[in-house]
Amino acid sequence: MSSVLVIGTGAIGAFYGGRLARAGCDVHLVARSDRDTLARHGLRIESAEGDFTLPRVSVFSSADKAPPCELVIVATKTTANSHLEALMPSWAAQARAVCVLQNGLGVEAAAARFAAGCPVIGGMCFVCVSRVGPGHVRHTDYGWITLAEHRGGGAAAGITPSMRAVDATFAGAGIETILAPDLAAARFQKLVWNIPYNGLCTLLGADTHALMREPATRRLIRAIMDEVVAIAAASGHPIASSFVDEMLHATDEMAPYAPSMWLDARARRPLELDAIYAAPLEVARASWVAAPRIEMLHQQLQHIDARRAS
Amino acid sequence: MSSVLVIGTGAIGAFYGGRLARAGCDVHLVARSDRDTLARHGLRIESAEGDFTLPRVSVFSSADKAPPCELVIVATKTTANSHLEALMPSWAAQARAVCVLQNGLGVEAAAARFAAGCPVIGGMCFVCVSRVGPGHVRHTDYGWITLAEHRGGGAAAGITPSMRAVDATFAGAGIETILAPDLAAARFQKLVWNIPYNGLCTLLGADTHALMREPATRRLIRAIMDEVVAIAAASGHPIASSFVDEMLHATDEMAPYAPSMWLDARARRPLELDAIYAAPLEVARASWVAAPRIEMLHQQLQHIDARRAS
Repeated sequence: MSSVLVIGTGAIGAFYGGRLARAGCDVHLVARSDRDTLARHGLRIESAEGDFTLPRVSVFSSADKAPPCELVIVATKTTANSHLEALMPSWAAQARAVCVLQNGLGVEAAAARFAAGCPVIGGMCFVCVSRVGPGHVRHTDYGWITLAEHRGGGAAAGITPSMRAVDATFAGAGIETILAPDLAAARFQKLVWNIPYNGLCTLLGADTHALMREPATRRLIRAIMDEVVAIAAASGHPIASSFVDEMLHATDEMAPYAPSMWLDARARRPLELDAIYAAPLEVARASWVAAPRIEMLHQQLQHIDARRAS
Repeated sequence: MSSVLVIGTGAIGAFYGGRLARAGCDVHLVARSDRDTLARHGLRIESAEGDFTLPRVSVFSSADKAPPCELVIVATKTTANSHLEALMPSWAAQARAVCVLQNGLGVEAAAARFAAGCPVIGGMCFVCVSRVGPGHVRHTDYGWITLAEHRGGGAAAGITPSMRAVDATFAGAGIETILAPDLAAARFQKLVWNIPYNGLCTLLGADTHALMREPATRRLIRAIMDEVVAIAAASGHPIASSFVDEMLHATDEMAPYAPSMWLDARARRPLELDAIYAAPLEVARASWVAAPRIEMLHQQLQHIDARRAS
């Protein structure tokens, strides 16, 4: 697919939108607060794989001002999903695919509602990238995206033609992908990382290495990961038993990282608690699985989020 | 008992030592960093029940410089218990009683070792009192002490003559007391409060009211209290089922309070994690009781304590 609309120009939207644009895709960005800076100075990507700048980018204040595109990438925070309808283009249902690059569980449902009939692909980004400022992001590690197609009721879609088309688009920009047959299983895999690190880094004011260095928090991270794996298994989306060790190892190997939730808390932005904590806990309850540590982390983060809001 | 040695002049030692001295007891204080201020300016107690000052107090840099007393009150932090031997007077075994006014579980064992033969009474202070500065404490709420006598192996001692003698001493200073037959049960009762509030206030940087106001943390506090009750019951020291509600209610009613652990963390002092978290978790393991929330809180606090130390 040669034309791409990217909604949201935070770390994820700017990084992957920039990669696609550099590779020659016809990329249009929808930005809010960063629009003027993007229009004037374009995108600046500092990356472990080579810095680059795109002095000119096509940027709009709303999706309907952009020309219709084959692929729509949703890269906003999930905290905006309740008003996703206003962010999506009116022609979304006519796109060839909508790809949701967000964290959490069940986040495709909102996009599927406003692009009825268009295939909706969930994309889980295993990437360390942070927004440094408007139109300026820093990529420190990893970068692959796991793709899986959304089905109503959470059924596994298998590997679909739409997934292959999205895959080819990313591949053309040198973005590694993994195609997964079961979206919920893939979402839970990502949550094995996000649930412990996003929450604990935010709560303890520490980066990933500070948590991993301390035996007590290292044990806690593993215990929380085990709870995520248990919820996934009980809800019919088992994760390979080696996956927890792989995630711990990957985190040890990567540069010290400050997850976006910690950055959100520091900037007093809303935390993505519904998608990353409340939705998996809902599945846990429905599957009769105890997840006391995830529940406790959620409660602690709710306190932080409520204090910010007050 | 008319002569009292108080080891430690933090909030607890200064408050109760001051109350006893005001009532006419022959009180001698053992202080370290606060000694000069105490010697020069005495004690200043701001209290909801009436402020008072004691311009002259008897203060020493070590217990052996003080005259032998009938009652020894240990009011140091439990983090100093590993070198309690150096803090206790050489004549401790000849005292009529040693009363340990500390938080946590098993804290009497250290005193019992260095005062062999002398009755050791645990005292659980249900009091909101904070050290404002050297020799200056602020009492905002409550004040009663639950007393119970230590026995090797954790057996219940019943109501002993030594407890009654300590009780009479406190009563003479208008300090309310409750006599409890089972020290471990009484210790666990106090932990029902200390375990959730000390840890969560420290971790979230919030006072008791901020935690109680937020439904998520309120639910978490109750869940943590339930775990403490379960450990107590499984280890043979059951707590009345109404006790959790009583503690929640008492906390709602009292003025917003910053537990000492939070103050310790802010001042970068060691946290009392062994007595308040590790010891009860040890009992949980020995009794085959799961306490995932207490364990998680301990792990989170260990991270904070380790960061302080580094």
